[in-house]
Amino acid sequence: MTFEQEPGRKWDSNVKFTPLVRTIGLDDLDDLCRGAAILGTGGGGDPYIGGLLAAGAIRTNGPATLWSLDETPDDALIVAVGGMGAPTVAIEKIPNGDEYLWALEALERQLGRQVDAVIPFEAGGMNSTIPVMVAARRGLPVVDGDGMGRAFPELQMETFNVYGVPAAPMAVVNEWGDSVVIEAREAKMVEWLARGVTIRMGGHTAIAEYAMDGATARRVSMPATLSLTLNVGRWISDARAGHTDVLQALIDGFAGTHYQHAKLLFKGKLTDVSRRTERGFAIGQATIEGIDGWTGSMLIQFQNENLVARHDGVLRAIVPDLICILDSEKVEAVTTERLRYGQRVSVLGVSVPEIMRTPEALAVFGPAAFGLDEPFVPIERLAG
Amino acid sequence: MTFEQEPGRKWDSNVKFTPLVRTIGLDDLDDLCRGAAILGTGGGGDPYIGGLLAAGAIRTNGPATLWSLDETPDDALIVAVGGMGAPTVAIEKIPNGDEYLWALEALERQLGRQVDAVIPFEAGGMNSTIPVMVAARRGLPVVDGDGMGRAFPELQMETFNVYGVPAAPMAVVNEWGDSVVIEAREAKMVEWLARGVTIRMGGHTAIAEYAMDGATARRVSMPATLSLTLNVGRWISDARAGHTDVLQALIDGFAGTHYQHAKLLFKGKLTDVSRRTERGFAIGQATIEGIDGWTGSMLIQFQNENLVARHDGVLRAIVPDLICILDSEKVEAVTTERLRYGQRVSVLGVSVPEIMRTPEALAVFGPAAFGLDEPFVPIERLAG
Repeated sequence: MTFEQEPGRKWDSNVKFTPLVRTIGLDDLDDLCRGAAILGTGGGGDPYIGGLLAAGAIRTNGPATLWSLDETPDDALIVAVGGMGAPTVAIEKIPNGDEYLWALEALERQLGRQVDAVIPFEAGGMNSTIPVMVAARRGLPVVDGDGMGRAFPELQMETFNVYGVPAAPMAVVNEWGDSVVIEAREAKMVEWLARGVTIRMGGHTAIAEYAMDGATARRVSMPATLSLTLNVGRWISDARAGHTDVLQALIDGFAGTHYQHAKLLFKGKLTDVSRRTERGFAIGQATIEGIDGWTGSMLIQFQNENLVARHDGVLRAIVPDLICILDSEKVEAVTTERLRYGQRVSVLGVSVPEIMRTPEALAVFGPAAFGLDEPFVPIERLAG
Repeated sequence: MTFEQEPGRKWDSNVKFTPLVRTIGLDDLDDLCRGAAILGTGGGGDPYIGGLLAAGAIRTNGPATLWSLDETPDDALIVAVGGMGAPTVAIEKIPNGDEYLWALEALERQLGRQVDAVIPFEAGGMNSTIPVMVAARRGLPVVDGDGMGRAFPELQMETFNVYGVPAAPMAVVNEWGDSVVIEAREAKMVEWLARGVTIRMGGHTAIAEYAMDGATARRVSMPATLSLTLNVGRWISDARAGHTDVLQALIDGFAGTHYQHAKLLFKGKLTDVSRRTERGFAIGQATIEGIDGWTGSMLIQFQNENLVARHDGVLRAIVPDLICILDSEKVEAVTTERLRYGQRVSVLGVSVPEIMRTPEALAVFGPAAFGLDEPFVPIERLAG
């Protein structure tokens, strides 16, 4: 994938976003899931479940067509689809796939119009693959971009919202086809109501939201993040196949993208995980004791996603920068709900593009939005 | 009002339901509110607030037209409107009236059709007067009937549901105009989701639900309950004006209606009230110590509405029969949220029509539906 920016684009990295692939087929799914686990930073739901659903859809309907943001028609109706709720629930109450199509259909009824393409609202976890599944089953393109550039726990934490797209109308659907359509002026109110409905629907739901036209999608989306997710997975696969260092491959790989900076923050053994499902989220923290020459311990707090990493009390990375916990044996990302005592892990930090670090972006998904006291500091400016 | 039943009607009382009045105007509101407090059996929200809203609407728009069920056209679109939530909240977060019209409009958008008349979903509390307010403001008739024959705390507890009308689509709206439209197959699921939304909207919302045609409304509604509510208020006013016994007037009045049996269960002083807002309901119990020749104490449990009354442990009345607590000085019903230590009260029990005591009705709003262990026993068969 080449990253070269067109002149005049809001996205300030010096990149142009040409998709690596024109379709997403069966052969792409393993890498897409691997990459989705990394960008999910612990959240977004288990990519494996989303991958299974996408594989079934592609086997029946053929590959999903990928539209770059550049080629998305100005007047195309684009809708974000995915799953909402605590990832801890999604692995016990496994979705069958229909509910995501029902969510899209419920929103289409509300809009009085059929959608022309779907877009992921987050890059990471099962929400990278669910839109691929929906695209394959509905014969629609999936747009190469998303609304978070990573995974975030709440729905107002989207660049779609930061840059002015209304979150409503939004459809929330359960596995029985019961549906709720929300109309509210504030994205936070939409999130608040949808979260309440999701809790009452058992903790995980299918959603469709942020209807917008193609021109708007181009302005407000994180670009090329579906390609990027696929690429991240390929760096891992290629390094494994070539028996080279996977962590180094990730660090080198990100350096060539609009994400730019990646670094190893810590290596150690999980000695404590406290996790509770509260207010519809998987909330808690993990303690990692250093091994392989790393001393002291790293504490990582999460709300579905990893939010902040401290090494012996010293800040090493903070939201919205990415904090990825990788299983050191498999060298694959570990989602929050699968963290286990005794696991050997490496912690990777990755910077997000500047567009996710503007004052208006940080107001929506910076540290204060998660109740953290300290200000955002870019990972590349933190020691280590 | 004459109560005479037409041949072949499902309603087994020997009555025909001719409305007492053809319109509800300003002069009717005090009596309507007084009666609504009685039939509300402690719940349904403070009638005074609904009365204020209705008075404002009638002053601006003129009286609301009343349709008897008999004259409601078969193909008219009828929708139930009212307020949902803990009455304890409605008296602190007072509605301004617009939200009920917005709820109706949200449901109309979902149905793709304008409604021809509104109907109360419960008889009692503020939900007797809210539909009158909506009718006056929209220039629509209000149907003389309801879906509960009293007040109940949950939305599946409606004769509309008991006799087969889908609760969905249902619209839930807050004071800002944020709205949620629910589609679900089970009335209990509709209630569950709407309750969750109501809690997240601050504890009180405006709702529109149970869309049906006139022929259906005639089959499934409690007939003439708006007239009845108005009448109950007039019995009280007339007795006061004539300095006769108000309680006796109520007992005599009910005897001439399809409700038939009313009796004084207890007189005493409130010595304990425990009340909490839980799961969106006002839940608790009141203890009354006997005075004026009454000995022992009466314990009344409530969930928004009064559910069961026991005199020294002996059952005296149980849901769905009506248990009304009246302030002995004012001889007006006291809603759950206004019960106060030291208040002198009389407890009146009233039987409900047979149609609310069928096995299918008791399955939906009998004692077991409230987690009570004992079976329903008609009040006229209980001692005292």
